[in-house]
Amino acid sequence: MISSFVGSGLWRTARAYQIYGANTNVGKTVVSTILCKAIPSRQPDEKLWFLKPVSTGPLDDADDRHISRYAKGISTRCLYQFDDPVSPHLAARTKLCPPDSEILEAISKTLNNWAQQGPGIALVETAGGVLSPGPNGSLQADLYRPLRLPVVLVGDSRLGGVSASISAYESLSIRGYDVEGVIVFEDQYYQNHGYLRDFFHKKGVQLYTLPQPPGKGSRHDSIAALLDELKIKHQLRVERLDSMTTRAHETIWYPFTQHHGMTPKNITVIDSAHDDCFQTLKSDANSTIDQTSHAGSELLQPTFDGSASWWTQGLGHGNPELALTSAYAAGRYGHVMFAGNIHEPALTLAELLLDATQNPRLKKVFYTDNGSTGMEVAVKMALRAAAGRYGWDASAETVSIIGLKGSYHGDTIGVMDCSEPSTYNKRVEWYRGRGYWFDFPKVQMSKGIWSITIPEEMKASLGSDVEFPSLSAIFNLQARQDSKLAQKYRSYIKTTLDDLVAKQGMKFGALIIEPIILGAGGMLFSDPLFQQSLIQVIRENPRIFTQSSNPSPSSPSTNWSSLPIVFDEVFTGLYRLGRRTAASFLQTHPDIVVNAKLLTGGLVPLCTTLASNEIFQAFDSPHKHDALLHGHSYTANALGCSVAVSSVRTMMDMEDSGYWRGYSRDWDEQGTQQGESPVVDAGGPAVWSTWSQGLVRDLSFAAEVESIFALGTVLSITLKDSQGGGGYTSTAASGLQKQLTAGQNGFNVHSRVLGNVLYLMASVTSKAETLSRIEGLLRKALL
Amino acid sequence: MISSFVGSGLWRTARAYQIYGANTNVGKTVVSTILCKAIPSRQPDEKLWFLKPVSTGPLDDADDRHISRYAKGISTRCLYQFDDPVSPHLAARTKLCPPDSEILEAISKTLNNWAQQGPGIALVETAGGVLSPGPNGSLQADLYRPLRLPVVLVGDSRLGGVSASISAYESLSIRGYDVEGVIVFEDQYYQNHGYLRDFFHKKGVQLYTLPQPPGKGSRHDSIAALLDELKIKHQLRVERLDSMTTRAHETIWYPFTQHHGMTPKNITVIDSAHDDCFQTLKSDANSTIDQTSHAGSELLQPTFDGSASWWTQGLGHGNPELALTSAYAAGRYGHVMFAGNIHEPALTLAELLLDATQNPRLKKVFYTDNGSTGMEVAVKMALRAAAGRYGWDASAETVSIIGLKGSYHGDTIGVMDCSEPSTYNKRVEWYRGRGYWFDFPKVQMSKGIWSITIPEEMKASLGSDVEFPSLSAIFNLQARQDSKLAQKYRSYIKTTLDDLVAKQGMKFGALIIEPIILGAGGMLFSDPLFQQSLIQVIRENPRIFTQSSNPSPSSPSTNWSSLPIVFDEVFTGLYRLGRRTAASFLQTHPDIVVNAKLLTGGLVPLCTTLASNEIFQAFDSPHKHDALLHGHSYTANALGCSVAVSSVRTMMDMEDSGYWRGYSRDWDEQGTQQGESPVVDAGGPAVWSTWSQGLVRDLSFAAEVESIFALGTVLSITLKDSQGGGGYTSTAASGLQKQLTAGQNGFNVHSRVLGNVLYLMASVTSKAETLSRIEGLLRKALL
Repeated sequence: MISSFVGSGLWRTARAYQIYGANTNVGKTVVSTILCKAIPSRQPDEKLWFLKPVSTGPLDDADDRHISRYAKGISTRCLYQFDDPVSPHLAARTKLCPPDSEILEAISKTLNNWAQQGPGIALVETAGGVLSPGPNGSLQADLYRPLRLPVVLVGDSRLGGVSASISAYESLSIRGYDVEGVIVFEDQYYQNHGYLRDFFHKKGVQLYTLPQPPGKGSRHDSIAALLDELKIKHQLRVERLDSMTTRAHETIWYPFTQHHGMTPKNITVIDSAHDDCFQTLKSDANSTIDQTSHAGSELLQPTFDGSASWWTQGLGHGNPELALTSAYAAGRYGHVMFAGNIHEPALTLAELLLDATQNPRLKKVFYTDNGSTGMEVAVKMALRAAAGRYGWDASAETVSIIGLKGSYHGDTIGVMDCSEPSTYNKRVEWYRGRGYWFDFPKVQMSKGIWSITIPEEMKASLGSDVEFPSLSAIFNLQARQDSKLAQKYRSYIKTTLDDLVAKQGMKFGALIIEPIILGAGGMLFSDPLFQQSLIQVIRENPRIFTQSSNPSPSSPSTNWSSLPIVFDEVFTGLYRLGRRTAASFLQTHPDIVVNAKLLTGGLVPLCTTLASNEIFQAFDSPHKHDALLHGHSYTANALGCSVAVSSVRTMMDMEDSGYWRGYSRDWDEQGTQQGESPVVDAGGPAVWSTWSQGLVRDLSFAAEVESIFALGTVLSITLKDSQGGGGYTSTAASGLQKQLTAGQNGFNVHSRVLGNVLYLMASVTSKAETLSRIEGLLRKALL
Repeated sequence: MISSFVGSGLWRTARAYQIYGANTNVGKTVVSTILCKAIPSRQPDEKLWFLKPVSTGPLDDADDRHISRYAKGISTRCLYQFDDPVSPHLAARTKLCPPDSEILEAISKTLNNWAQQGPGIALVETAGGVLSPGPNGSLQADLYRPLRLPVVLVGDSRLGGVSASISAYESLSIRGYDVEGVIVFEDQYYQNHGYLRDFFHKKGVQLYTLPQPPGKGSRHDSIAALLDELKIKHQLRVERLDSMTTRAHETIWYPFTQHHGMTPKNITVIDSAHDDCFQTLKSDANSTIDQTSHAGSELLQPTFDGSASWWTQGLGHGNPELALTSAYAAGRYGHVMFAGNIHEPALTLAELLLDATQNPRLKKVFYTDNGSTGMEVAVKMALRAAAGRYGWDASAETVSIIGLKGSYHGDTIGVMDCSEPSTYNKRVEWYRGRGYWFDFPKVQMSKGIWSITIPEEMKASLGSDVEFPSLSAIFNLQARQDSKLAQKYRSYIKTTLDDLVAKQGMKFGALIIEPIILGAGGMLFSDPLFQQSLIQVIRENPRIFTQSSNPSPSSPSTNWSSLPIVFDEVFTGLYRLGRRTAASFLQTHPDIVVNAKLLTGGLVPLCTTLASNEIFQAFDSPHKHDALLHGHSYTANALGCSVAVSSVRTMMDMEDSGYWRGYSRDWDEQGTQQGESPVVDAGGPAVWSTWSQGLVRDLSFAAEVESIFALGTVLSITLKDSQGGGGYTSTAASGLQKQLTAGQNGFNVHSRVLGNVLYLMASVTSKAETLSRIEGLLRKALL
């Protein structure tokens, strides 16, 4: 995808349209000429501009010259001219051509300059058909997509033109374009216009016809009607955008949002999105760059999606590959109810995931719709297995889970119960926390130094904070296995668990953790050694959890020991932290793993719960009521599974092709100290980030920054909280958030804050050029 | 969409390909000729067939004649010939043309006859471009879609041909076609083949080129390679289909399924779906019609989706409109994180739903991913509102809900707790039912008589069963308001509630019901008067629920009284029962309503929880932690919301246009007795079904049938259970289910069973011809 920071061309008074042809030679330039001639009489207050971004063919024939010859008082411009009358990507071979992003910026600049001049209409003509390749080989409709100009489609009136016109319309639609009108020449023999009129009318698109040939004096009522409609549609679009915050404020009950004191100004209007950026409606409220706002300034601006849309975004917004994949699944299946049935996408995804995790324990895939429901399934699985082995009657006694403080597994009440009581979940009337939650040592960088910080209450047992030469060193678990700290961890964990079970009589049914980073809890970066130790102690000490003298009969190594280990990789899995699984950081094989978010690359909800065969067998019985009682209407829906197959495969291919090599090299070179060997596995260095190590180090010295870390696509900045405490109620990060929202150079950044933590998250496809712009903004704000 | 019962042409040895052209005049027939000439030498054991379903132009030019002239030993056929060399839909004007379904059946029959002859290849050539209209005006790719033949696409080598070829490919893809190879002529000037080769290679599709002009003696290595690949792809496809049940059995953990004793034979392979039918892989295990299975018989057969894919299916599988809508949203947005943002589809859907429900109480829309999570939100909403008004500390005391026996609200643990304890949910370790559940009188027809049956334990209070002249009469709540039964209902309900609160000290936070039909509980059809009475008694007696002398300060009529009333319309809403809302049957305005399933017309998961302003205000506070703590990653994802807008609007338009008039007339005429006026509202008769009243009446006399009912798209048949009891453990319905699976005349029926209840569910678009076939099968099985 083309990465760019142009705004989707929209102005209050000026308007720009992209003229696409259903095919080559359908009369685009004739239509443009007719439009240009008609505008001055129909809309006399409008200026007139014509832009041919890329032109092929002899200079004399150039469309912009043709236009300026026939339409008076028009400004015309051609940005790139190639002599060969062939497709631009061939013509460009013989001439140096700037990259797509530069072409886009040049168009954007031209249109914005024109828009400053007052009310007017700009026609931006394309070359060939909608999907003819541009000069660098990108399909034209992909190349111009970031601008997402409203489209006037010139249909094909010839034999076969119905097919060509509708196909062109579909290709534009799946790229998120709005076709505002279709023009086609009348052909009394083929009568395509008759068919197309009915067809497009049903789609809410009007068809306008032109007599053929369009000689002088021919009536152009149709063109006048088109011009009127374009004007009305523009007005309606702008009015609608203007009214959206008010109307959303009226009707939408936002997730996780306290509406008290909220006003429409707190809502951001998102007109579309592409690659890493939203196109957001500028408002005086949330933009300082638009102080001089006037009718000619752009209404939409690119806004970096700094939360990766709640950690889901992976392959870029508006990804045409995923769009086509989803449409194919919709067209081939719709939805197929899943109980007792199998379809290709669900089977392929299941096999792909079991293979991808490289965890010999995992054998079965259960589908649900989101992380919360997938974790509910994991809880049902784990508790049944444990209750079965230990002979507990869970309807009479409480079986609890072991977790970490600050954990979060979703908002359905069952999995809220897996998190420790807090001011938050205690407000949910049916919340009943059932577990014990360990506090844990955390990883961070401060003033250029990586360290493990030990919580105050644990210092008596674990000692004080420990410094490390690099992030890699912290992840070198093999080297750290025999350290003093590791011994302390194990002893602390064992003592605590012994006490909970033997003295306090608790019954535990599972260990449930988010490996490495606890996201919603505030980007809490756990010392991987602590998590690894927790699992080791549990697995190696089955007698903690039962009085039986022989609790764990000799069994295959893929069976769970002591307690089923559940990894909630909803956020951390599938390359979010730079690796395919978060489990691989811990060199541990969990018994149950839950994936969602990046699973579908940032398109639709889907979740998988992978489990071992032994967990699966815990539900085996001649009685139907012993089965795992779970299933949603759209379980394993073909669209979601298809998109997931495409996403996971794409990311695995990126890994195989070394797509992130530049990033990992940055972390490798600077992070590895003399004499220290970086933790590597077959796939390359274990620890890297899309955010540069230099940025992390520099920001760690900033006056406002308490600590910072980056891992994979995640950058987390903990700000000093003068009111103390940090946590969710803190407002320390809101100043930085505001500065990012204000932005600079025509773009800004959407970010999310968790108390005094501001994090940014890239897509796995984010390009270094994009991220360095964001880094620039961060440096400006903090240094 | 074209409704048809043809199989998707697939045979073990014979193969059929559809030759589509990227445009007209790209050389489809030349390619077909070359293929036909090449096949005998490359694949000498294969027979050769050529089918031109629809041909336009003078008879002499007809492609089938052309082919037979150049390729020897070939069987050719043209089904419909029109003389005018124009698009078939124009040519057909002058000649009588059979409907699309007949054309499809003729093609299917021809191909099947050929396939009987042994190994061979059939080429099915199309006319014009992929979306050129067929003789009845349907786009060709839509017309032939039920066959879903693998496609050989002939690309366009001319100027603009890159665009035309890729657009054509995209139009085929979004209709669920598999393009198995692309052929294009080499043009050294435009070099489309070079670009297209790279492009299609990335999609996993190989491009084959032909020299131009393809004179005698030109090398056809490329064609030989294509033929080899087609053969291999066919083998792989069949092998994969053959292996899918085994592999699914190995990897998939099915929802709601006891895997004990399950074998691969219990799994149905679904290759694709279209309109009301799946295309299922035939197997000796689940098909009796294929006893004489041999290599020439069809592998796939149309299977009516009798559970409407778990009650989700509304607008037909593989609906091209929904596919394009979903792709547009994917292309325009991808996903947009929703907290603090607004985008067009989410806002439009919220406004549409608030408007559509015609419930003045509902003002706010909360989005989640499925019925279960939407109900969790409803529970959180209702309990907070009640606990707030009554001053309960819900962390210390148990607040319960009032519900109905047999209710079901999803599988997340929180909403499982809203259902009464049973052998099922008690197996879930964390299940803790929190409520009181009323048993209730049920509607059914038996031996031609509609009646309300009173549960045994309630007879002392409510009297014995009551007969009614028609289903409409049961729904005439105005007439029934003052009946003896209504008085008994109210008195029984009030006494019961008084006892629970005053004597047993229970605290209630909500009434939660599935209006009219409790689906998962076994298609329990509640007497609407009982549900209406329950709500009336609760709302009119706020003092039951609190000791306060002034429990309900004077307040607007849109405020809740006594308890928030929650309607779970996940299954029953949005026309599933023939009306836009199930609430309208009860002439009641709930305070909270949950919709899902049909919301997206049978494509992707999405759920909305609509609530009153007063419920919303219960979360208003200066503290963030008082907000409604709920949100999923893909909350209000643009794809789901866009599809939902399209689905809901389509269904509302169907209602407005009287699409179901034929069905409602059937129920109106026969159901309304002399002197009784049917319950009507502005939109027409209140009570009707897509299943004929005659069928319901006739089956109600069947020896095996205990009772039956139909409402909207739902038909529910309760079978006599000789082992007694009925319920989930019954196997009484499995005999009928087997007979439907066996099918007849080349199609069969997928159905789901709930204990001794077998139900069938139509789409809202199901056509009378389709359903009458299914009715025929039911009559054959039961009468």
